[in-house]
Order: sequence, then C-alpha cells, then structure tokens
Amino acid sequence: MTSDSTGRLDDVALTFETRLLEVLAQQRERSRSFPAPYTQLWESLERMARGGKKIRPRLLVDAYQALGGIDERAAVDAACAMELLHIALVIHDDVIDKDLMRRGEMNISGRFASEAMLRGTSRRDANAWGEASSILAGDLMLTLAHSLLARLDIPNGQRQSVLDIFDATVFESAAGEHYDVWLSMHLEPTNPQDVLAMVDQKTAAYSFQAPLVLAAVLAGATTSLIEELTIIARQIGVIYQLRDDVLGLFGDERDTGKSALSDLREGKETLLIAYARSDPAWREVESLFGDDALSVADGHRLRGVIEESGALVFVESLITERCEKVYELVQEASLPTALRELLTTSTTACNSRIS
Amino acid sequence: MTSDSTGRLDDVALTFETRLLEVLAQQRERSRSFPAPYTQLWESLERMARGGKKIRPRLLVDAYQALGGIDERAAVDAACAMELLHIALVIHDDVIDKDLMRRGEMNISGRFASEAMLRGTSRRDANAWGEASSILAGDLMLTLAHSLLARLDIPNGQRQSVLDIFDATVFESAAGEHYDVWLSMHLEPTNPQDVLAMVDQKTAAYSFQAPLVLAAVLAGATTSLIEELTIIARQIGVIYQLRDDVLGLFGDERDTGKSALSDLREGKETLLIAYARSDPAWREVESLFGDDALSVADGHRLRGVIEESGALVFVESLITERCEKVYELVQEASLPTALRELLTTSTTACNSRIS
Repeated sequence: MTSDSTGRLDDVALTFETRLLEVLAQQRERSRSFPAPYTQLWESLERMARGGKKIRPRLLVDAYQALGGIDERAAVDAACAMELLHIALVIHDDVIDKDLMRRGEMNISGRFASEAMLRGTSRRDANAWGEASSILAGDLMLTLAHSLLARLDIPNGQRQSVLDIFDATVFESAAGEHYDVWLSMHLEPTNPQDVLAMVDQKTAAYSFQAPLVLAAVLAGATTSLIEELTIIARQIGVIYQLRDDVLGLFGDERDTGKSALSDLREGKETLLIAYARSDPAWREVESLFGDDALSVADGHRLRGVIEESGALVFVESLITERCEKVYELVQEASLPTALRELLTTSTTACNSRIS
Repeated sequence: MTSDSTGRLDDVALTFETRLLEVLAQQRERSRSFPAPYTQLWESLERMARGGKKIRPRLLVDAYQALGGIDERAAVDAACAMELLHIALVIHDDVIDKDLMRRGEMNISGRFASEAMLRGTSRRDANAWGEASSILAGDLMLTLAHSLLARLDIPNGQRQSVLDIFDATVFESAAGEHYDVWLSMHLEPTNPQDVLAMVDQKTAAYSFQAPLVLAAVLAGATTSLIEELTIIARQIGVIYQLRDDVLGLFGDERDTGKSALSDLREGKETLLIAYARSDPAWREVESLFGDDALSVADGHRLRGVIEESGALVFVESLITERCEKVYELVQEASLPTALRELLTTSTTACNSRIS
C-alpha cells in the first residue's frame, strides 16, 4: 500500500470501488432465481454504482486515513454504505421530481418505462412500471446500506455509534427532502433562512457530516474532534449545495449534464429564488417559474431577472464567506495536518467545481 | 405475566403494541426540531401503526412463546420490526398503485394531498406532495425496522442470522412486488404458476416466513425445525393471499373496507384472473379489465365472467387443498404442541377471514 503526499492510500480507494461492485454483483446473482426484470433492475443499479462522483465514500475513506485509522475493511464498508444511501436518495428524489433523466442519461424510471413502451405498453402503464422499479430500487439500496453497517466487524459500542449516526442521517435527509417539496408548493412566503435550513438538512447532513463523522468514530477520534468536524462538515455541505444551485441555473449544460431549464421548470426553491422574490421585477416573471413547459427564451428571461435582482452576487458572496469561515475553522480546530489539508482541499473543490 | 390456555402471554402482546408506539413517539418528538409538515408525517405514521391487524408481529411473538423463548425484549423488538416493514411496504405499494385510500380511509398520500388542495395548491402539485410524503414515510419505516434489528441485544451470531433473514425478506418481497407490476402490464401471456410464484414472493415471504423463522432463530430452534417451519409458513402465506384476492373481488365491501372495483380497475393479475383468461368468454370483457373508470355495472359483468369461468371454484379448491396440506405438515413436523396449535389456528383464520 502506497501513500501520496496528501496521505491518501490509493489502494484503499480502489478497494472501496471494488467492494461496492462486489456487493452489488452478489445481489444481482441472487436475483437470478427471480423473474428476469428483477435481474435487469439489479443490473441498472450496478450501472449507477459505476458512475457518479463518489464524493461521500471518498471523503469517508480519505478522512479515516487522515485520522490514522487502520481497519480498512470497516472504513471501506462504511464508505460503500454512504454511496448506497446516496444512490437510494437520488433514485427516490427522481421519483419525487418525476425526472426520467440523471447525469445526461436515462435513469431507472426512464429506462424501464421506455423499454416497456418499445414492447407496446401504454405510456401511462410504462411510466407506472418505471416508477415502481425506482421505488423498489431505492428500498433495496437503503436496505443494503443498513445491512453493511449492521454487520461491521467492530466493537459493539462503536457499531452502536455508527448506527446512531446513520439513522440520524436518514432522518434528517428525509426531513430536508420533505421540506424541499413543501417549499416548492409556495403555500407560504419563503425566506432565505428557510431555504438555507432545508439545504443544510437535505444535503449537508448526509453528504458531508455523515462521511466525516463516521470516519472519525471508526478511527476512534475524541468527542471534541467529532464536534469540531460536525460544524465544519455542515458548512462545507452548504457550500456544495449553493454551488449546485448556481450551476443548475447558470452552469454550462455540457459540464453539468443537466438542462439549465430543469430547476426552473420544477420550481425548485433555491436560495437564488428566495432572494430574487424580494425584487419587484420578480412579479412580472413569477408565472414562468415552475411552468413545466417553460421555453428556452422564457428561461433566459427568468435567469435575467434573477441575476439583475442581485441574487447571483448574493449567493456567490455567501459561498465565499462560508469558504473563508471553513478555512478559519479548520486552522483553529485541533486536527491532524492531513485532515486539515483534506478539508481545505474539499472546500475549495466544492466551490470551484463546474459539474 | 399470565398465560392463557393457548400458552400465549398476553402481557407480551401488550408490550409489543406499547413498544411500537413508543418507538414512533420518539421519532415524532425528534421531528419537532424540523418544519411542521415533517411532524405531521410522523403523526400519520403513528396513526397507521395504531390500526391494522398486526398479523405479523402477533405471529412472531406467539410463535416465540410457543417455542419456549424467554427473551421478551428481543422478540418484541423483532415483532415491531416486522410491523414497520409491513407499514413501509404497504405505503410504497400504495404509491406504486396510485392508491389514495387504505382500509376505508385516506392513506398518507391522500391525506397530505387533500390538505394541500384545501390550502389552494393545484391538484398536480398536491398529488406530488402526497406521493413525496409517502415515499419518504416508507423509507423512514424501513430504516426504523433495520435499526431495531441491528440493535437487538443478543449474541452476535444470532443477530447475524436475524439480519440475514430480514435482508432476504426485503429482497424477496421487492422481487414479488416488481413481478406483480410486471404481470399487470400483460406484456406476455400469464399462467397460474407465474401468479402463484409472485404471490409466494410478495406476501408469503414477509408475512409468514419471516415472522415464524425469526421467532425460531430467536428462540434458539434447531435448523431442521426452522426448515419445517419455512415450508409451512410459505403454504400459509399463499392461503392468506389467495383469500385476499377472493375477498378483493367477491368480499363484502363493508367488511373489507375496500371497493370491489379497485383490483379490477388496477388490472391486478391474481390467480382468479390468470384462470379466467383461459375461458373464451374472457375475450369479450378483457377490455374492461384494468380500465380505471370501470363502472359498477361493468364490474358486475366482469365478476360474472370470472365466476362462470370456474376461477372462483378453482381458487377455493386450491385454498382448501393448501389448508389440508398445512394441517398434514403440522402434524408430521416435530413441533412443540403449542406451536402446532398456533399454526393450525393461524391457517384456519387465514382461510375463514372476511376482511
């Protein structure tokens, strides 16, 4: 096993991807004693697991090593569980948003629905089949994540802590997702604080806090270090999501792999929107927001109003401010040098990413 | 603790219901630090947990005691996990079937959607909100079920077996549900064997096999007893589901709490339908099957053709045959008397129930 200058053990990162595919391949093989569409579902899940940025499991493994952890197997399985949870949430999120595409290609709903249509099913039945496949796929990924953590071969007390963290993460992510859909209905006036709270629950909890805190618990870190990490993780998570919102509206579609109209059509209540609402010009374009047949020209007009309102400058300043805050917290916290470097690099990457 | 003549400890049955509500109340209280709709979601889950027939947890607790088990706490928590899994599957099943009602009242989707509509949301947004609430509610129930089992305070080896059984149960139930939706699309000719296999996977696995086998593992039963129980459980599960299908079409709506049109409108591929398809008269009414605007009169006509085809007599004979088979297996198996009585009584109850 070799380590590069950041202290990251490349072989372990390799092990994590190998292990994830191994776990899924086992399930795919088990599915062969059931009807063929079920095996196709597992094959789709394997395809999904091969893609993606793997931010959460990488962060967990890297942080674990930066903290001097030595039980590779436990860290790798916990990393796989985080990726499986991510896949589960993404799949169910797509059902909730009625999306048939993800990362520029058809998702499970889209693939199963279009195959059924090619075989002559009505669009309605085909969509119901796609949706059923996705709902079950998400349940299976969630089950597999729980399963890996419940079987970690570590002391009982430590495993209890891992389970507590994971359960709290699912609980909070569901709360954030529920609130996100609620806000999108615009039944009450939304203020930027509500949107920031939602982002914090929906994304920061499972994407940054859980991987970092799980790494710390597995590496046997002190309670005070875990508390410091928690605060830092939440800040990074919000930076990540705010950058995501900006890219969703103003990013290059070739990089993001996602239409710059989709968040607008969906009526996604981001901080950009919550800010733009306070501008008198918003009234004129409000009816376009959430219109699922929004044209390219109207999308352009809507983005213009959002930018003119100062929302983009506001969110960019907030991102910069949060980054500075993280750099400061990282310097002040009593962390090993390797972890300090990891957190700083991760924060910069969350801010400067283009996809 | 007192025991009645069947050997059932009533206090434990009480403990199971108390424990289930205690677990859910804890989550509801935790949800108070999140926006109000999330707490409403948990309150809806508590309401669901108060209702229902509690077949699975009762079976687990009763079988555990019949096998001489003495660790109440473990049995009660495993029983709660089975009920939570059932609630999760029911909620996601309703989303898949686009049902807004369950047991004669609005389900979570129906309740959340109608409340949003009363507040002025469009029907489309309100339905999406109801569906999102249900998807997340199912994820939360599934997580809670895993959580209880992963924390069972029993020897590690035994807990591994419990986790193996639970994971296999979710895997198989999802396979059965997936196949059920597949069969409802009628893309290939369906034969009664396919439908029986689906019923076995979708219902027998989690409703009868899992509670009985978990009870046996927790009570420290031998492998051979567990094997005998598995075979018996699957038979009982199929009886239960076949009776369910008959009640769905020919039961009294006042008892079942469900419209006698809903299975027909949904195009639910039951054994009754698979059998009726082979009758030439089926061709004449085929277009009515799966029509979601099916009238009462056409429903009557469809049921008439099904009954005339001999499907009802066929399924009733099959149920009787399976009951005889179970009674025989129960007598032949080396089981404690109390368990023998429990299995016989359960089989009779599955057959003779009217709701």
